[in-house]
Amino acid sequence: MKRKTQSKPIGIFDSGVGGLTVLKEVLKQLPNENIIYFGDTARVPYGSKSVETIRRFALQDSAFLKSMDVKMIVVACNTVSSNAMNLLRENFDVPFVDVLLPNAMYASQVTRKNRIGVIGTPATVESGAYSRIIKKFNPQHKVFSEATPLLVPLAEEGLIESEATEIILKNYLSRLLLKDIDALILGCTHYPLFEKKIKEIAGSEVHVVNSARQTARTVKSMLEDSNMLNCANKKGDVRFFLSDIPRNFKKIAQRFLKQNIAGKVTRIDIESY
Amino acid sequence: MKRKTQSKPIGIFDSGVGGLTVLKEVLKQLPNENIIYFGDTARVPYGSKSVETIRRFALQDSAFLKSMDVKMIVVACNTVSSNAMNLLRENFDVPFVDVLLPNAMYASQVTRKNRIGVIGTPATVESGAYSRIIKKFNPQHKVFSEATPLLVPLAEEGLIESEATEIILKNYLSRLLLKDIDALILGCTHYPLFEKKIKEIAGSEVHVVNSARQTARTVKSMLEDSNMLNCANKKGDVRFFLSDIPRNFKKIAQRFLKQNIAGKVTRIDIESY
Repeated sequence: MKRKTQSKPIGIFDSGVGGLTVLKEVLKQLPNENIIYFGDTARVPYGSKSVETIRRFALQDSAFLKSMDVKMIVVACNTVSSNAMNLLRENFDVPFVDVLLPNAMYASQVTRKNRIGVIGTPATVESGAYSRIIKKFNPQHKVFSEATPLLVPLAEEGLIESEATEIILKNYLSRLLLKDIDALILGCTHYPLFEKKIKEIAGSEVHVVNSARQTARTVKSMLEDSNMLNCANKKGDVRFFLSDIPRNFKKIAQRFLKQNIAGKVTRIDIESY
Repeated sequence: MKRKTQSKPIGIFDSGVGGLTVLKEVLKQLPNENIIYFGDTARVPYGSKSVETIRRFALQDSAFLKSMDVKMIVVACNTVSSNAMNLLRENFDVPFVDVLLPNAMYASQVTRKNRIGVIGTPATVESGAYSRIIKKFNPQHKVFSEATPLLVPLAEEGLIESEATEIILKNYLSRLLLKDIDALILGCTHYPLFEKKIKEIAGSEVHVVNSARQTARTVKSMLEDSNMLNCANKKGDVRFFLSDIPRNFKKIAQRFLKQNIAGKVTRIDIESY
C-alpha cells in the first residue's frame, strides 16, 4: 500500500511556465521522482485577475492533477499560493506545498534588521499573504511590498539584460531599498530569471530569496517525513501538460528549464475539469 | 421586422480591454446605437497563444454575443481578426466586421511609396493576414511586419510616456523605419494609446493608421448600406460584460474609454458558451 503511494507522481502546477523554475529545482534535489507538470498557458497570467477567478482556476488545475493520481500537489505559483490555499486544502484529499511558506520562512531566518521586502504580481501583493505569514513567525518583522507586473512579460520576452528592463527594475526596487530592507523575496516564479540583475541593484547587503530552491527543499522534507519518497533506483519520468501550446513555448522552456521539452508536451482542455 | 433588427444592439468583443478604443469611436460616430461589449479578461491576452486556442476562444466570444441577439458583431481584436474570421463567418448567421480590413484598406490608400509597416502581437504578425490582404488590394505593395508583444502590458500598466517604453518602442520600430515605409498600421487595439509617441519616433513622413477610427467607419457604412441603423431619437444604451473583473479595471477603463464604467459591468462565465 505504502509502496504504491511512493511511486505515484508529484504534481506541480503554475499559471504558465514560471513554475518550471520550481520543477528544475525539484528535479535537481529529487531526481528519482516521477513528476507531472501542468501549466495553464491558455489562461495565463493569473496575477492581474480577480480573486474569484484565480480560485476557480486553481480548483480546476488541482482537479486535473488529482485525476492523474498524484501523491502531492506543489502550487508553483505565488498568485495561487497567496489567494487559494485554504480552499484547495479543503477540497482535495492530498498534501499541498505552496511557494509562500518556504520563502517567508527563509526570509525571516536570514533577516538581521527585521525588515523584509517582497516583489510579486498585483494579486500576490494585494493579498497581503506574505506579510501575514512572516508576522506569524515574528511579529517584530516589518514587511514592505511592491507589485511588479511588467516582470512576467519581460521574462517571457527574454528581455533579461536589456536597458529597458534595468530601468523598470530600478524603478520597482527604489522604494523598497529606501526602506532599508536586508532580505528580498522574489515572490513570483518568473523572477529567478532576474536574480543576477536584482542582486546587482539591491547590493550585497540584501539577501535575495529565490522561491524555487526553498520550495523544492520543502517538498523533499515533507516526502521524507511522511515516508513517501520514491525509492526506485532509476531516474524519474517527467510529463508536461499545458492548456495551450504557446507560440514561443520552445524558447521559453529552454530559458526556464534549460532543456528542450517541446516534444514531451500534451495539451489538455482545463475548462472541462 | 426590419424595425426590430434596427433596434437590436451591436456586439463588440475583444480579448480584453483594448477593444474599448474601438467602442469609443463607434460611440462617437453612432451615438444612437445600443451596444454590448464583451472583453475576455479572464483569458487575456490572446496574442501569444496558439491559433487553435485563439479560434476556440473566438467561437465562445461570438456565441455569447449571439445569445444577446446582436445585429452585428465587431471583432475589435486584431489577433482574432487575423486568425479566425472565416471560421466565425461560417458558424454564425450575423454580419461580422473585423479590424483588419479597414486598417489594411486605409494604409494601402495613403501609401505613396507602396511600403507599409505593421506592428502587432506575435499571433497577428505570424498569421501574415495584413500582408495577404494588402497585396490583394495592390500586388505592388510591400508589407513589413514586427511583433511588439510588450506594448500590451505596458499600456495596461499605464507606462505610456516612460523612458523604458520609449527605449522599447524605438527598438521595435527601428527595423521597420529602415525599410523606408510611409504608412504604419497599429495592428492591435491597445496601440492607439502610444499613437503620439509612435508618431514622434516615426516622423511626419509616416502615416500612422489608428485601427479604432477606421473600424468604426466601416461599422457605420455597413449598417447604412443594409438599412440597419438605429433611427431611435435617443442616446443608445451600452452594456459591458467581462469574463473577469480585473483588479486594475477601473483605471484601465478610464485610460482607454475616458469614462468610469466600473458600476456598469456584469461578469459572465465565458467557458459555458
